[in-house]
Amino acid sequence: MSALFPEARLLEIVFPDHTNHLGTLFGGQALAWMDKAAFIVASRHARRTVVTARSEEVNFRVPVRKGQLVELVARLVEVGRSSMKVEVEMTAEDPLTGDSRVCTTGRFVMIALDSNGSPAAVPALPDDLKLALGNFSAD
Amino acid sequence: MSALFPEARLLEIVFPDHTNHLGTLFGGQALAWMDKAAFIVASRHARRTVVTARSEEVNFRVPVRKGQLVELVARLVEVGRSSMKVEVEMTAEDPLTGDSRVCTTGRFVMIALDSNGSPAAVPALPDDLKLALGNFSAD
Amino acid sequence: MSALFPEARLLEIVFPDHTNHLGTLFGGQALAWMDKAAFIVASRHARRTVVTARSEEVNFRVPVRKGQLVELVARLVEVGRSSMKVEVEMTAEDPLTGDSRVCTTGRFVMIALDSNGSPAAVPALPDDLKLALGNFSAD
Amino acid sequence: MSALFPEARLLEIVFPDHTNHLGTLFGGQALAWMDKAAFIVASRHARRTVVTARSEEVNFRVPVRKGQLVELVARLVEVGRSSMKVEVEMTAEDPLTGDSRVCTTGRFVMIALDSNGSPAAVPALPDDLKLALGNFSAD
Amino acid sequence: MSALFPEARLLEIVFPDHTNHLGTLFGGQALAWMDKAAFIVASRHARRTVVTARSEEVNFRVPVRKGQLVELVARLVEVGRSSMKVEVEMTAEDPLTGDSRVCTTGRFVMIALDSNGSPAAVPALPDDLKLALGNFSAD
Amino acid sequence: MSALFPEARLLEIVFPDHTNHLGTLFGGQALAWMDKAAFIVASRHARRTVVTARSEEVNFRVPVRKGQLVELVARLVEVGRSSMKVEVEMTAEDPLTGDSRVCTTGRFVMIALDSNGSPAAVPALPDDLKLALGNFSAD
Repeated sequence: MSALFPEARLLEIVFPDHTNHLGTLFGGQALAWMDKAAFIVASRHARRTVVTARSEEVNFRVPVRKGQLVELVARLVEVGRSSMKVEVEMTAEDPLTGDSRVCTTGRFVMIALDSNGSPAAVPALPDDLKLALGNFSAD
Repeated sequence: MSALFPEARLLEIVFPDHTNHLGTLFGGQALAWMDKAAFIVASRHARRTVVTARSEEVNFRVPVRKGQLVELVARLVEVGRSSMKVEVEMTAEDPLTGDSRVCTTGRFVMIALDSNGSPAAVPALPDDLKLALGNFSAD
Repeated sequence: MSALFPEARLLEIVFPDHTNHLGTLFGGQALAWMDKAAFIVASRHARRTVVTARSEEVNFRVPVRKGQLVELVARLVEVGRSSMKVEVEMTAEDPLTGDSRVCTTGRFVMIALDSNGSPAAVPALPDDLKLALGNFSAD
Repeated sequence: MSALFPEARLLEIVFPDHTNHLGTLFGGQALAWMDKAAFIVASRHARRTVVTARSEEVNFRVPVRKGQLVELVARLVEVGRSSMKVEVEMTAEDPLTGDSRVCTTGRFVMIALDSNGSPAAVPALPDDLKLALGNFSAD
Repeated sequence: MSALFPEARLLEIVFPDHTNHLGTLFGGQALAWMDKAAFIVASRHARRTVVTARSEEVNFRVPVRKGQLVELVARLVEVGRSSMKVEVEMTAEDPLTGDSRVCTTGRFVMIALDSNGSPAAVPALPDDLKLALGNFSAD
Repeated sequence: MSALFPEARLLEIVFPDHTNHLGTLFGGQALAWMDKAAFIVASRHARRTVVTARSEEVNFRVPVRKGQLVELVARLVEVGRSSMKVEVEMTAEDPLTGDSRVCTTGRFVMIALDSNGSPAAVPALPDDLKLALGNFSAD
């Protein structure tokens, strides 16, 4: 199904400077990566400069450790006139064991801007995608 | 009133690498700074390692430009057994004009952990502070 | 075919600090990103710590500009006892126009190490993948 | 008294990359933070671009450890035609014990520049502040 | 002989964020530093913006550890009309023991560009240097 | 004479994130680079962990611009029982014109520490070097 979805995939490595006393990832670093993924997928859809208008509630369920890989998948799940809702899922993976777990999922609302910084219209999502998204959103 | 509140104040400079095509700050960088401020005020209150459990809805109202100063004020506004709710206000300031505006306010829930990574009890807020916070939250 | 290949996909944004006087990406930054992609795909295949043993000739054909997106796809194309050859393709994309071009392709040889830092055996590639790779390498 | 003084407060976290073999903060990182604090308070007073003209003798008395918080308070203590003398005090704090100590104090002289890079006049300090500063400097 | 050669010398410290699980330097970081050294020596010779056209095979023979110093020496060894071949030698040194070893040598081909981004002529190497280089290249 | 002196040479590139509104280098970045150079030459002489004990007055005479190269030369000019005085000279160079100027000179006092963090004895300077330094200091 991934071919249907406008999506962006990012991989990052958790370095010592990203972690606290217990060697686990700072929430703020995770939020920055999630926003970056949302920014890229929305930029590609709009072909405009985009800015973050809103991040919705983000829950951090599983601590991510130093040295782990983090994969972020951002999917464009809803499009307004100039706004785009992006669902971002972050998965942590131990590179030595392969053990991987979704650690958090969040939604970011991005706005497309024209060169004056005013909101600009963005393309609609294809109809077949909307159907697929109906299921996806139900998770 | 600032002497009463457990709070942390951070100042940052918006560098070119923090900005998009229009020269405005990435939302993810703002979220990272807000979480850092929340982390510091919660760490100081708990005297424990703390982690971010949740960020609540954050709205980005005013674009922040390259070269501006950003001040973040994080205030501890509610304390549970091991959780701490932190209100973070981010203000952008043009260093040349002095024009400054609150660009966003968000809340972060932090959890204190003991050395095994299990939730640990944190001190209550002083009673007089709770009264003050009652007003504060009403803004 | 992407489901068959052990591969890693990374997305990066070209920031001002990654560029020279003409606003084009430093070669060294490109090499660092390519190596990071090779490191991740090889780590995942070996489930070991991996190190770079060799980078082969890398040609930079198209300049990459500030503000562009860079996508790196690293594919594991050959496996020895403890070595893994990884093909890395780097594509630059203008986020506003969508114009995208492969800017360079390189190969990195990675070695898996055990916890003493000695070379360690890695799993073979599946047979069907080798067939597919025969075609791939012919490009 | 803090309301009277033009001052800037910064909080930083000491990360692994800021430290040497013994896990203590590099002096150069401390100097960079101190200059940043001086830059911000002087920029706000002058509402001009400011540059560092001189740092005076800085003594490092107490080692600062990885994971500690560093608070920097920069106060404008003297103003010439276009120059501003800034006193910067850096305090290290163990986030787990709350133990905090002033680790160093230094002075930086900043110059305000106009848009051509020539020295530009800056506002005087208020008279009542000068009186207070008389006492402050006597510490 | 070093006075004869157009060369650039760089010193770096291997920080935790530059290393993998075993505490050894990432190959990509080494490649980025090598390219930076090549960029500087070629820029100085050409007095033009230069870009990397090609890196040749680079072998990593000795692991470099966290906390070690890395010295890079880049020497311009061949000049075409607008291209410059640069030999880069990277040496790792334990700061506590003084033990130092060449860890890798590579060659980078840099191209000089005019302000339109087109290849631009660069000065020839002095004749006596070419003689010396004849010997040097024979190593 | 450079062969006689214990010295360390560093080259850096001034990136956009190192500069203010006028595109000139922050003083704090310069101080951090100067301290890094002093740290390296002192570490190599002492073969111990070293820390900065004091920076002496540093004057910034010439603004350094974005895109310029900065060369730092740190020379060990005096040795006590466990302290080392290091003279650091920073030169800025326009890579396109070759125009280069000493922008500042400073002195840093470094202390060698044993593995417990206590001051440790360091080797004396060679006698012939002291003679040469007599002249050098007279500049």
